[in-house]
Amino acid sequence: PALCLFHQFPRIRPCGLAIRRDGDAHVTPGQLGPLFLLADCQTETGKAWVCPTVRQTLLQIANDPTLDHEYLPVLGFPEFTRAATELALGRESRAVIENRAGGIHTVGGTGAVRIGAEFLWRWYNTSSPTPIAVYIAFPQWGNLRCIFQDVGFTEIQPYHYWDTVRLAVAVEGFLEVLESAPDCSIVVLHAPEETGLTPKQWEKVARVMGRKRLFPFFDVPAQGLASGDLDRDAWALRHFVAQGFELFCAQSFSKTFGLYDERVGNLIVVARDNETLVRIRSQLQKQVMGTWATPASLGARVIATVLNNPALLNKWKQSLRMLAEKIMLILEKLKEKLRILGTPGCWDHLTAQSGTRSFTGLLSSQVAFLEKHKHIYLLGNGQVSVCSINSHNLDYVAQSINEAVSSTEGRAQGLSWAEME
Amino acid sequence: PALCLFHQFPRIRPCGLAIRRDGDAHVTPGQLGPLFLLADCQTETGKAWVCPTVRQTLLQIANDPTLDHEYLPVLGFPEFTRAATELALGRESRAVIENRAGGIHTVGGTGAVRIGAEFLWRWYNTSSPTPIAVYIAFPQWGNLRCIFQDVGFTEIQPYHYWDTVRLAVAVEGFLEVLESAPDCSIVVLHAPEETGLTPKQWEKVARVMGRKRLFPFFDVPAQGLASGDLDRDAWALRHFVAQGFELFCAQSFSKTFGLYDERVGNLIVVARDNETLVRIRSQLQKQVMGTWATPASLGARVIATVLNNPALLNKWKQSLRMLAEKIMLILEKLKEKLRILGTPGCWDHLTAQSGTRSFTGLLSSQVAFLEKHKHIYLLGNGQVSVCSINSHNLDYVAQSINEAVSSTEGRAQGLSWAEME
Repeated sequence: PALCLFHQFPRIRPCGLAIRRDGDAHVTPGQLGPLFLLADCQTETGKAWVCPTVRQTLLQIANDPTLDHEYLPVLGFPEFTRAATELALGRESRAVIENRAGGIHTVGGTGAVRIGAEFLWRWYNTSSPTPIAVYIAFPQWGNLRCIFQDVGFTEIQPYHYWDTVRLAVAVEGFLEVLESAPDCSIVVLHAPEETGLTPKQWEKVARVMGRKRLFPFFDVPAQGLASGDLDRDAWALRHFVAQGFELFCAQSFSKTFGLYDERVGNLIVVARDNETLVRIRSQLQKQVMGTWATPASLGARVIATVLNNPALLNKWKQSLRMLAEKIMLILEKLKEKLRILGTPGCWDHLTAQSGTRSFTGLLSSQVAFLEKHKHIYLLGNGQVSVCSINSHNLDYVAQSINEAVSSTEGRAQGLSWAEME
Repeated sequence: PALCLFHQFPRIRPCGLAIRRDGDAHVTPGQLGPLFLLADCQTETGKAWVCPTVRQTLLQIANDPTLDHEYLPVLGFPEFTRAATELALGRESRAVIENRAGGIHTVGGTGAVRIGAEFLWRWYNTSSPTPIAVYIAFPQWGNLRCIFQDVGFTEIQPYHYWDTVRLAVAVEGFLEVLESAPDCSIVVLHAPEETGLTPKQWEKVARVMGRKRLFPFFDVPAQGLASGDLDRDAWALRHFVAQGFELFCAQSFSKTFGLYDERVGNLIVVARDNETLVRIRSQLQKQVMGTWATPASLGARVIATVLNNPALLNKWKQSLRMLAEKIMLILEKLKEKLRILGTPGCWDHLTAQSGTRSFTGLLSSQVAFLEKHKHIYLLGNGQVSVCSINSHNLDYVAQSINEAVSSTEGRAQGLSWAEME
């Protein structure tokens, strides 16, 4: 007789996760096969881009007979976390010099957010008589909300930095949300370099957050890919650090090195002093021991090799610049094609944005049209990963968008976020 | 003015983690430098052992220009989870054939235990009017207890399968604990192949657990290293599956491949039918997305290559057999040395055990003596990792144990677990 122990559980629900990948049953091929405008940086042939210095370094590592495969320390590969933290904060950052900023090597950017969120839940939320609220930007709402919910937070609120009506950055609305947030709330600042906020606007955000003692949790998935310049992309984070904020910053290297599968992340802690940093790292270490014990080493070894070698570092920076330029060029070309096709509406917002993710301004009905009739898949809010458009599929994408917009009523000019949900 | 947000938190305690490693400030070198009898499989020169087929496969992978570094699926590398699950359950297992057993690729064995424990907390504990109890064997009490506590379990109880008085397997005590456990409790069965229980004894354990509907959570860190035979080491797990139990099994490949730093684990789910398996995997997928998103690929790619290639598989099995024989030989030699030195007491229990971890029967005072005077570090309960003893340090270890036992009162013959704590 089978010992059906799982049937002692309440009925375990299957969850409907909407991850679409090549090979999924409900994906049908279009003219060019199914086209996923969600993919990360790709080459012209649609394969995931790998930074050339990465391939070279991987071979070096595999050929090194002195390397064994002993566990890394719980908090990871120290040469990596140091270099990564300096890359984000700047080598001259006072927090770095004063030894009050440090990283812990995590399993990808998700792992960094998870460990940080869990720490905040244990040490921050429990100290408050009312539940601490967490504010997350709407475009990243789905995944980040799941993590904060998973660790226990119940008060999770969205904010918007993109105006779907004007198709432009909406800093006023963002500032209003911050002003009305309960003091000491947590604000997740995902991909600050891609939001399109100017330094002046970030200064305002920092002022409000400082006055209200809101806790900044940065999440930086692709430093360098928005402007092509590592320092420029780190402006907002460095401004907060310079203003004296204590904060967390989850950092990922998947996109910038094309090393998606090796899961390299870093959770940066900036504290008031070294003693606070040491105490926090000690608790994070305990959490990591109960989650994955120690992180995987290969990816961090590759990245540490590149970041700590001036010649390789320069080559990598060149690759980043080229990739960022390619992204901008694709958006220029797409805008131009739409203009030539006479697609209704103004498409200037395409080139006003920067970074790997871009709001197309398409309505969810138009997204559905693309999916059904053109087998092109993008996010319901009209966001695409620009890197998945290349010279082979650009014409098809532009024509399809043109058809979608022409065949449905008007453009995404008039819809609020509420209506889009 | 610094925005000291962490100081809004209640004072964050530093936690006193007792991880001792080379380079720790409080470790002083002895005659041979500090000697850690806690390390995993090592070569004669004290470097972590790497399976030769692993080195070869790593080079192949680094030289393969067709591989990109795209994310793995959330539940990992399918070729790996399938091969790993079959390795544990056997290719002919009815659960495998009936498509009701499946693995999810995790970040190490710790990650597998973590994801499984979290699932049980969410879906099992919440269904019970009283908190579900978790039983964990005393030798693994520390780390596994942390994981189950971390996810929320409060009722965690130790059990013993080793009698510190008789220095032998203590199945009666183990069965008594199971009999007195509340129905439907969770029982963690860590390293079943190393406990020294005979098949007859495992049958008794399974009968009691079945009658009381206790949920078995296997944790298999080194299948093949106890007896040198993969199938023999999997006897207990396969018996439970054959008896119709639904269960979890966390599987690690760190020790058996010498790939500690690539963090390769697999959480095996055995369910009554495919439909239950699908529902469970779907929920596990959601958990993984909020923890590390997808696992790292390199280690799983190496292991899948070896497990799925008959020639490499044979070579790897040979390496495992050699390693297991080496472990047995070390224990034989250590026993012989202690006999020649005239160390008080009988040391037969050393060779009566198998696997990488062995109870020496040393008292905590003797462990402290070794630490203070000989700079030899082992677990407080007298357990050592046998692999860290080699021909270079064997004499020193034997002489040191002899001094420790001779200089303190008597041997570890007369102490109960309670007294050892």
